[in-house]
Formats: sequence, structure tokens, C-alpha cells
Amino acid sequence: VVSIDHTASPLESAAAIVEGGGAVQRAIATSKAYELVRALTDEAGPRPAGSPADARAVAWALTTMRAIGLEQVRAEPVTVERWERGVETAELVGATPQRLAVTALGNSVGTPPEGVEAEVIEVPSLDALDALGRGPVEGKIVFVNATTARTRDGSGYGATSLVRRQAAARAGALGAKAVVIRSVGTDHNRLPHTGSMRYGQGPARVPAAALSAPDADLLHRAVASGSPARLRLVLGCKALPEGPSANVVGEVIGSERPDEIVLIGAHLDSWDLGTGAIDDGAGCAIVLDVARQLARPEARPRRTLRVVLFANEENGLSGAKAYAEAHKAELARHTAALEADAGAGRVYAVRVRAGEGAEALRSALGAALGPFSAVAVAEAANGGADLRPLRPAGVPFVDLAQDMHEYFDHHHSANDTFDKIDRDAIGQAAGAWAAAVRVLTDSPLTPGRAPEGPP
Amino acid sequence: VVSIDHTASPLESAAAIVEGGGAVQRAIATSKAYELVRALTDEAGPRPAGSPADARAVAWALTTMRAIGLEQVRAEPVTVERWERGVETAELVGATPQRLAVTALGNSVGTPPEGVEAEVIEVPSLDALDALGRGPVEGKIVFVNATTARTRDGSGYGATSLVRRQAAARAGALGAKAVVIRSVGTDHNRLPHTGSMRYGQGPARVPAAALSAPDADLLHRAVASGSPARLRLVLGCKALPEGPSANVVGEVIGSERPDEIVLIGAHLDSWDLGTGAIDDGAGCAIVLDVARQLARPEARPRRTLRVVLFANEENGLSGAKAYAEAHKAELARHTAALEADAGAGRVYAVRVRAGEGAEALRSALGAALGPFSAVAVAEAANGGADLRPLRPAGVPFVDLAQDMHEYFDHHHSANDTFDKIDRDAIGQAAGAWAAAVRVLTDSPLTPGRAPEGPP
Repeated sequence: VVSIDHTASPLESAAAIVEGGGAVQRAIATSKAYELVRALTDEAGPRPAGSPADARAVAWALTTMRAIGLEQVRAEPVTVERWERGVETAELVGATPQRLAVTALGNSVGTPPEGVEAEVIEVPSLDALDALGRGPVEGKIVFVNATTARTRDGSGYGATSLVRRQAAARAGALGAKAVVIRSVGTDHNRLPHTGSMRYGQGPARVPAAALSAPDADLLHRAVASGSPARLRLVLGCKALPEGPSANVVGEVIGSERPDEIVLIGAHLDSWDLGTGAIDDGAGCAIVLDVARQLARPEARPRRTLRVVLFANEENGLSGAKAYAEAHKAELARHTAALEADAGAGRVYAVRVRAGEGAEALRSALGAALGPFSAVAVAEAANGGADLRPLRPAGVPFVDLAQDMHEYFDHHHSANDTFDKIDRDAIGQAAGAWAAAVRVLTDSPLTPGRAPEGPP
Repeated sequence: VVSIDHTASPLESAAAIVEGGGAVQRAIATSKAYELVRALTDEAGPRPAGSPADARAVAWALTTMRAIGLEQVRAEPVTVERWERGVETAELVGATPQRLAVTALGNSVGTPPEGVEAEVIEVPSLDALDALGRGPVEGKIVFVNATTARTRDGSGYGATSLVRRQAAARAGALGAKAVVIRSVGTDHNRLPHTGSMRYGQGPARVPAAALSAPDADLLHRAVASGSPARLRLVLGCKALPEGPSANVVGEVIGSERPDEIVLIGAHLDSWDLGTGAIDDGAGCAIVLDVARQLARPEARPRRTLRVVLFANEENGLSGAKAYAEAHKAELARHTAALEADAGAGRVYAVRVRAGEGAEALRSALGAALGPFSAVAVAEAANGGADLRPLRPAGVPFVDLAQDMHEYFDHHHSANDTFDKIDRDAIGQAAGAWAAAVRVLTDSPLTPGRAPEGPP
């Protein structure tokens, strides 16, 4: 259903909203996104869900939202799974012992204190692993050596993040002792990339870890040499009891349609290895910076803008699920939802996922983003991990696609730190976001509910 | 003294030696340097002087020299200082604890097991430290935050490697509890760079470590924030008793002037964090590849080519000193010496340090290197650290300058691994080396002894 409200005040044209040429320069000059990433990463630090740093981040977000003029600022309680890393070492044993840079995958069980030692069997994919069957896998350490493609849209992550998530379940079912994967990353630094994994329903729960790309190369050469390659893996990681965290929410109440909500989200938690600058300090900074701009008295939006900084995106999506549950009665009034969880790169495209009226909205967004050299594309919006629980309610999604060519160089590794943020790029992104969000809050176009199911 | 031997067989022209255009492509196609780096780094691994891996490297070098047809292959014993790393952590303590990526500097004493904790005082240079005097420094952890410039010739290393070497001695003399420096490197990875440091004559021996660049930035912001920044540093490193190692030496005996020696060297040891691919697996590979080419029966040089893979360049220059001492009687017959210790980048220039005849030699080398797009420059050759003890004997030096723009991104860090080697670049370098060495072994030009003293 497309409802065009003819009684609304005349729409400012998208072009007028973004003020034509020079928009990027003005956005960069006026954005506070860069400083917001610095503040969050310096003042909270690495902030795995439920950790003391996560609590610092919640406090920081509440303070920051109030400081930039948001209303209804609150922490909505979320219970989160907790997991912590311990000692982690991997060593190729034999005639030439070599230490390999390794990190446990999130949720993995640990090894016994003395570690697990076994011959390594290498496969290029999960399908190749399944095809081996139990015989060659039983008692071995499985090494899944799949390379992540560098792409602008981050699509290379799809295949290899599935490897990360499922390798232990599938290798464990075949009797493997442990699993190591090539890091899901596009870099060649000796900094392994962590990320969430899950066990299946079966009883086998084998330790799972990622090797840095150079170490995966080394292990590959050792396996390819023909003589058996033996690995010793020691992981001290473990699950902790569930604990408290929170979604942090603030609003700019709409001047004309306060009950209609445009949700802009990001996630407040981060992995523990870096300081969570690109993932997702940048996203938090972008949505806070957009809200800061719209919270100025002279800029108040027509619909309500709601900022949600979700808890525990990384290792369970607890915040996303809690939000959808707590707000289920008002999801029908969420006229659009967007998540910033793609780093600090420039926005180059906008995608929409909506029912009737999607095309008109896409056009309006494309016009608003023209000054930022971003274009509307026909591909449906994905919405981001934290928006997934909103899908069944048909909440329309908008993606502001950011350049992710370099994102997976640092993502989930110790290298995810503030120095990786490019001030100009995040300023452009925040400006493009503000222009697009303004269309969503102020346009008389109300997109119809999005169809369920993929894409 | 320039001796031109008119009885020698007509000199092949430099142009003929390198066969004109296509030389680079042929060099890349036929070089084994890339495979040699792989073999050393995979089969020996990280090889600090006197370690088991160092002994593996010595065995590898002996085997490899014999396999490529060198003569007089031997291990010349060297006693080396030994030092080993232990646990190493650094943490910013206070309201926002942050773990910092840190590594001990070579030769540093450790801290007590519980670490050293103190307020941090930051200075941009050693001069600024000295200027402070004892008052503000006593009882503090000194942070020297000096940035290494990225340059083609590696010259940015001069200033900051001096900081690395001397900071502990100078801060200790002023009563500091410990020293941390910004890593001597040009990257922004969370991988600190180690390297040798030395204490002065005084009794104060304070622990010294390097922070990765992103962590140095973080500490800088903490200090700049105005509230005192406190650091806790735990280093388990310690000196070990001296132990045995060796210079590995092999030769291609000259066909006409076997007593005249052209020395091409590199160092076999490496730091422990990476696998010593660029420092100095690449150098070992280049000189071995040059020797392999000249060892072919149809290619035998007129003078003797001697390959020396020095022990313990990184932390004491024991091999270099032992070589100069053991061979002092024949240093007068060393007509040239070159060291490959600048990574795996392309050769872009040649420098000479010699007495009479230097200019003619420079011209001949420039002609030989023309097909490799490298040029002779007037600047005097430096010779490399392992050649320093040969200076008093006036041994002429030749430098084949390699592109070092990226060298200090990885040097002395865990990132110094085989994947950083560019096959084409090291192939070009090995080809240029071979062309230049051929001039030195076969030209009737014998450069006069080099003057003592700088440069």
C-alpha cells in the first residue's frame, strides 16, 4: 500500500534537501562521525557483548545521545550470551616447528589445556569436506582453506563466513578432532580474523579457530609437501554465563507524523581483538551523526527518527531479537529501517526492499544521493543482520551500500582500530546517509510493506 | 691503486653480459630466488642467532650451497649472544583499560613477573628526552613517539632505529622505569616491530619495548587527553648464555685470478616474530641465486666469488666480526664486497665506495645495469651492516640499492613472511645482482682500496 498524503506540506525536493553541488565537501566538513568513532573506540575499547567494556559502551551511547539532543534516550535491557577468549596457540610440529598466528572462533569450545594434536587434512570447501566422508577425516584436524574475494559490495564474505560458521559442525560430525580455517579476510597480515560459529544439534563439539592468511599459506605448503603435517592447537576460550547488556535507543520525535518510525541502526558491541572501529564503531558514528543533524531544532523531521544501537550483533544477535520482540506492537509503524554495518567507506549505491511504491522511493533516494555520486540500483536491500528479525513484519529496508574493498582487510581482526578510519570517506558516508534519511523521514511517500522471503 | 690487466682476455662488454633488452624478463624467468626464500623460511623458520632454527638454517645453507655447485663449502664457527622473548603484554590501566600490541626490543631485560606500572611521559625524540632532564622522567615510563618516514632508499630508518637502540640507555640514565617506543616501521598494523637495542655503561638497565603504530597512536591520544595515562608493561624476555652458530661460506673459484675475492653476503639469522623472509631470506636467496648462475661450468668467473651468509646480524653482528677476524690476512685480496640486506624489491641504483678507479667501475656497473632500469649514482656505497668490520681494511663496497618503499611495513615484525615476496621483483633484483657481480668478477678494473671514514 502506498499512501500519499496530499494534506502534507509541500515536499522539499530531494535536490533542495542536499543543496546540490558541494554537498560532499560540506558533509565532510560538518560531520562528527570521525570524532564519534574515536570517542567510542578510545573510551569504551573492545566491547564484546556482556563485558565490562560493553557496559562502558552503553553508558557512552546514552551520554552521547543526550549530548546530541536526542529524546526518549534509554537503554532497553537485553540478555546476552557471553564467551571469552583465552590463551591461543597453534604450532606445526615436526622437523621444522613453526608457530602459526591463530585465533579462536566465537562460541568455540576450548581444547584441553595441553591442546589437541593431530595430522592435518586440508579441503578447499565445506562441500569437499562432506564429500570426503568419515574415513579420511576421523581423528584429524580439518583445515578449510577457502579464500575470501575482495569486492566493492562485500559479497565475498558470504561464502567464507558460511565456512567459518559451519566448519566445526560439519567436521565434528565426521569425527574430526578440531577445525582450523583460513581467516575470512582479504589481507595478508599475521592477524587472524575471528567471528561467530555455531555447533549443530549433534553431540560433537570440536574446537574451531582461524589462521592468518600467511599462516594458512604456510600450512597449505606443509600439507602439499607430501609428508604428513601435524598441528598442535591450544585454545583456552570458553562460554560464560549469560549476562546483561542493552540496546541503546534515542529518538527525534517527528513534527507531523510522530507515530511513523524510521529506524536507523548499528551495533554497539564489537569483537575483542581490535577496538571495533570499522565494525561497528563506524556504523554507530554514522547513525549518531545523522541523528545529530536531524535533532537540530530547525531540522526536525516529519516522521520520528529512531536510532537503535543494538547489543550483541556479533555473537548471537540478542539485541536484534530483543528489539523485534519488545517493539512488535509498533513494527507496522516502522516505515523504513536501515543498518550501518559496512564500515567507514564511501556510499556508492542505494537499494530498497519494499512493496508497492518501492520504485518511487528508489527514485527519490537516487535523486537525493546524486550529489554524493551514489546511484539507486534495482537489487533488493538486504537490511543488515540486526534488521533480520524485522522481516516477518514486512518492514521496508533501505541499504546505503558503502565501498567495502578494504573492509575485510581489518574486519574481526586486531587491526580493526581507529587509524583505519578515513575521515573524508566516513564524512561522505554520513552526508549520504543524512540525505537519504531525510527523504525517508520527510517524503510523503510511504512504501508498502516488504514481501517476506528472499531476497 | 687501479690495476688494469692488459694480459687478460678481452672483456665482454657489460651490455653483452646482460644481453640487452629482455634481460629483466629472462632474469625473472630463470631466477630461483623466490623458491630459495620459500625453502629457507619454510624449512628453517624464524631463526634467531643460536636457536635450534638457526642451526637448521646453517644446515640448510650448507646443503643448498653444495646443491647449486659451490666449492669450499663450510661452516665457519661463530659464538653468538643469545636472547629470548617471553610473555609480553602492555595495558593502559584506568577507567578504560586497553590492551596494547607490544614486543620487547632485542637485548632488553625483562620486567618483574608482575610487570612495571607507571605514568607515561611522551617525547617526540631522544633530544627532547634529554632536554627534560631527570625531574619529569624519574619513575615514569618514557614513550618515544617518533615516526619512520617511507622512502625508496630506506633512509627513514636511520633516525628511528637510533631511537630504538638508545632510548632505554638515555631514559634509564634519567631514572625512568621503562621505555616504550613507537615501532620503527611504516605500516599501520597491530604488529609491533622488534630490533636490537643496547644499554649504556651505567648501571640503569630498564626494560624496552615497541608498540605497534595504532597502539602508539592510542597511547598518544591518552597522554594528550590531559589526565595521566598509566601503563603496565610485562616483559618475560631475557639473555641466555652465549652459544654456537656459524657463518656459512661457499665459493666459485676464479678461473684466472682465484686469489682475488668478490664477496657477496647476506645474513642467515632473523628475528623471531616473522619467518625472516624479507629480512634476510631475500638477501640470502639473491646471493645464492647469483652464485648458482656463476657456478655453471660455462659461466665460471675470472675472480673468485665468495658467498658469505653471516651469523647473527640482528643482535650483535657476531658473524661479521668473526669473518673479518678469521679472514684478516686475505682482506687485501677482497676486491669488492656487497651485502644483500634490503629485502626483495627491485634494484634501481648502484653505488660504489672505492679509491682510485671508482669512477670507471661505477660506469661499468651502470652500463651493466641499464637493461634493469637501474642507474649508477655518485653517492658512496654504505656496504651493509655485516661489511662494516671490513672498512678498516679498505675493502671496496658496492651497493645495489633496492626499492624499500614497502620494506619497513614488515621488517622485524610478525608480518615478515614469505607471502610478502613479489616473485617478479626479487627476480629482477637477482638478475641485476648477477649482472653487477659479473662486472666485479670479470672486469679488468680492480678498484683501489676505499678510504676509511664516512661516508
